[in-house]
Amino acid sequence: MTDSWWLNPCKAIDAAAHEQALARQQQLTKPAGSLGRLEALAVQLAGLQGRVKPSVEQLWIAIFAGDHGVVAEGVSAFPQAVTGQMLQNFVSGGAAISVLARQLDAPLEVVDLGTVTPSLDLPGVRHLNIGAGTANFVDGPAMTQAQGLLALHAGRDSAHRALECGAHVFIGGEMGIGNTTAASALACALLDCQVSDLTGPGTGLNAAGVSHKVAVIERALALHAGQRSDVLQTLFNLGGFEIAALVGAYLACAQAGIVVLVDGFICSVAALVAVRLNPACRKWLVFGHRGAEPGHRHVLQSLNAEPLLELGLRLGEGSGAALAVPMLRLACALHGQMATFAEAAVADRPA
Amino acid sequence: MTDSWWLNPCKAIDAAAHEQALARQQQLTKPAGSLGRLEALAVQLAGLQGRVKPSVEQLWIAIFAGDHGVVAEGVSAFPQAVTGQMLQNFVSGGAAISVLARQLDAPLEVVDLGTVTPSLDLPGVRHLNIGAGTANFVDGPAMTQAQGLLALHAGRDSAHRALECGAHVFIGGEMGIGNTTAASALACALLDCQVSDLTGPGTGLNAAGVSHKVAVIERALALHAGQRSDVLQTLFNLGGFEIAALVGAYLACAQAGIVVLVDGFICSVAALVAVRLNPACRKWLVFGHRGAEPGHRHVLQSLNAEPLLELGLRLGEGSGAALAVPMLRLACALHGQMATFAEAAVADRPA
Repeated sequence: MTDSWWLNPCKAIDAAAHEQALARQQQLTKPAGSLGRLEALAVQLAGLQGRVKPSVEQLWIAIFAGDHGVVAEGVSAFPQAVTGQMLQNFVSGGAAISVLARQLDAPLEVVDLGTVTPSLDLPGVRHLNIGAGTANFVDGPAMTQAQGLLALHAGRDSAHRALECGAHVFIGGEMGIGNTTAASALACALLDCQVSDLTGPGTGLNAAGVSHKVAVIERALALHAGQRSDVLQTLFNLGGFEIAALVGAYLACAQAGIVVLVDGFICSVAALVAVRLNPACRKWLVFGHRGAEPGHRHVLQSLNAEPLLELGLRLGEGSGAALAVPMLRLACALHGQMATFAEAAVADRPA
Repeated sequence: MTDSWWLNPCKAIDAAAHEQALARQQQLTKPAGSLGRLEALAVQLAGLQGRVKPSVEQLWIAIFAGDHGVVAEGVSAFPQAVTGQMLQNFVSGGAAISVLARQLDAPLEVVDLGTVTPSLDLPGVRHLNIGAGTANFVDGPAMTQAQGLLALHAGRDSAHRALECGAHVFIGGEMGIGNTTAASALACALLDCQVSDLTGPGTGLNAAGVSHKVAVIERALALHAGQRSDVLQTLFNLGGFEIAALVGAYLACAQAGIVVLVDGFICSVAALVAVRLNPACRKWLVFGHRGAEPGHRHVLQSLNAEPLLELGLRLGEGSGAALAVPMLRLACALHGQMATFAEAAVADRPA
């Protein structure tokens, strides 16, 4: 294997900024702890960003798209052509994440790792053509090692563009018909869970469809069981191009010191892979929401992650992470702008 | 009793706008239901506002403050002078709700119903001087009927100012040392619950403090038990000026057709009183968050309310409702701006 950049150290937390932010929180004009999780969130961001008053103004949202060979097994409610059609929708502004990016004043980068329509040439989309979708992982590895490394690298490149733009927070989203199947398979391999615990309806399978999906994943797990202890190879065996790109992006963000806001089930599985590869990246990950896909809860528990929102979302595209951005921004505003007891001449307790 | 305006009919839902909004949701470029609660929220707002594409741009935030005679029993961790000090902090911009109002581009109205410092004359605060705080409700009614009617009316006046300003959503906040005691007492009287189920630490009592608070509330409930079936009189017996103002504001909003975004425990108890007085107001109430005060969960259940956020807040001031505003705004933006399958030439399922 070539240079294993994903194993490089992650940036350290600024303990002084963390401590000062914690002290500041105790002095703000409110009962101690009364802003709940927003207090800890602001203090966490202070430590990560290395400043007592953190900021989440500059965002970077990157959507990674790819197709999945396993769709040949009939595991999705939508036709595979939708992946390419949605790429167009992302850049023309009609997709959910396009609307959210506009509302949040965030740039939206769209990266096509490789779909079943390699001839796609959409203005505003970065077409990388790593492959015409992955291979069907019930028959062999989803991707070659060369393809997997390219996908990881594509994620890193996006994180580096975010860094150049001064992004305070990175959101990775995903699009790929069939990718809950890949994510469930990956999570099963890494967590050693019952397949049925980690497999759900995705975009809208019925109960029979979910049962079939479970059977497909069980076949894939049996085929690739011998390599389970190798996290990177398991990613290449069972993942997708867009999932590998997310893994690369999360690790590069943690190395460069950019806070990551993780989206739903598929992104959380990518986060799990990233943490297994390089555990120090965990502290750079903030979790946006708990989604409706049943396996998400298990994956979040395995990461000891408590997301900010729970609104029954199951869309992907980074939408749940984007929805959590106002919580981060308002936590920072409260932390940075509230008066202290001394400034406001308000009596602190005890009476 | 004079003109019982609070019993007047609430505005009806626009069934046509609701239906059209529901139909629109089914056509947006996403799997059906994948935006979870944001879909139902946008459709609900469409029906309430009478337009297929609702909006939550114009807000009205009113903070109602008042002092509580029951503080003489030692039920609060903070000195009573804090109520007046916080009024100053609200208008000078240092309080949590002040910061949130700025970030949300919302006007912030501060209404002092009556504190223990009647000489207060703060620029930017509406001082109504209904009384120097309520009377201690373990000895008699918290307020006279005349005071109670004035407080209800003050809430209605604020709702009417919101209407004049074209507000799409009304947020009422509260400030008043001791007011979780009043809210718990009121909720116990209306819900016939164990006092201990509805009584919590408020701004920061320890376990002994909470036990004492329970005992104080039990004495008050025994004193006023004979009037429990009269909701309005129970409000006057056990409530606070700011709680009565919230009740009046919520009812006036429902009558005028302004969506209410309800804050935490105290505001939810005001909502419960409003619904008991005039049940049709319930459909105008959207619940912002589930707070940390233990009784909040019971009150929400009794209202069949599922709040948008759960972040462990227990501050009041309308802060939890304000934090939910971006969810409403983003739900409206997604509903109004996403492309339909036809517009985007994206294949809807089935495959």
